[in-house]
Amino acid sequence: MPSKKVIEKWHEFANGLNDESKLLDLLADDACFLSPVVYSPQIGKELTYKYLCAAANVFKGNNFHYLNEWIGENSAVLEFEATVEGVTVNGVDMIFWNETGKINQFKVMVRPFKAINILMKLMAEQLMK
Amino acid sequence: MPSKKVIEKWHEFANGLNDESKLLDLLADDACFLSPVVYSPQIGKELTYKYLCAAANVFKGNNFHYLNEWIGENSAVLEFEATVEGVTVNGVDMIFWNETGKINQFKVMVRPFKAINILMKLMAEQLMK
Repeated sequence: MPSKKVIEKWHEFANGLNDESKLLDLLADDACFLSPVVYSPQIGKELTYKYLCAAANVFKGNNFHYLNEWIGENSAVLEFEATVEGVTVNGVDMIFWNETGKINQFKVMVRPFKAINILMKLMAEQLMK
Repeated sequence: MPSKKVIEKWHEFANGLNDESKLLDLLADDACFLSPVVYSPQIGKELTYKYLCAAANVFKGNNFHYLNEWIGENSAVLEFEATVEGVTVNGVDMIFWNETGKINQFKVMVRPFKAINILMKLMAEQLMK
């Protein structure tokens, strides 16, 4: 699937961070989520969805916006920034998709150290809900 | 300058991680380095060079290799992996250059958390030398 289309759909979700059905439709059954914190992937559509929804809830209302994007044939890197509890969070969403245009890998990296600490705490709170 | 050229030159340096004169020639006078740990940039060619050399020393002999790259007009993202003290370090080099093909911003993000901790320690040791 043309890369533009996948990333356009991702932006539709990311712009509002609130229509989670849009997100579900974007994920492949074998999707996995790779977090900034843990090396092992979270495997499967359900877990990937859960982590991305938790992240969306953490960033909602915190001036989440994209700064740059680099688009390849079956993958893209989107650089973002947000301000969470007064700390600037700068990161990348690294999105990989299959030939049917469904996201099969979603990896996140974040800087600086202070931002990772805050996200660890807030993600844990979201995931325990 | 065509992006291929800048990234080719970067790879020439990164392949060996040992010819530091190649690196110096690649940097703009107003270059800055943005670390995975601290938000504030390290400003100037000299400091950027110092940080990149420290990183090269940390990764040397630790199976540093690139996994993926996304190339834009004046910037690129290179995903890398290495194994440092038994811990897998997965990261991105986010490289931006000016119209003369000199790198003016070099940003690094790293995952997982364990990897950031190890790099913080080893980078500090290198920078204090």
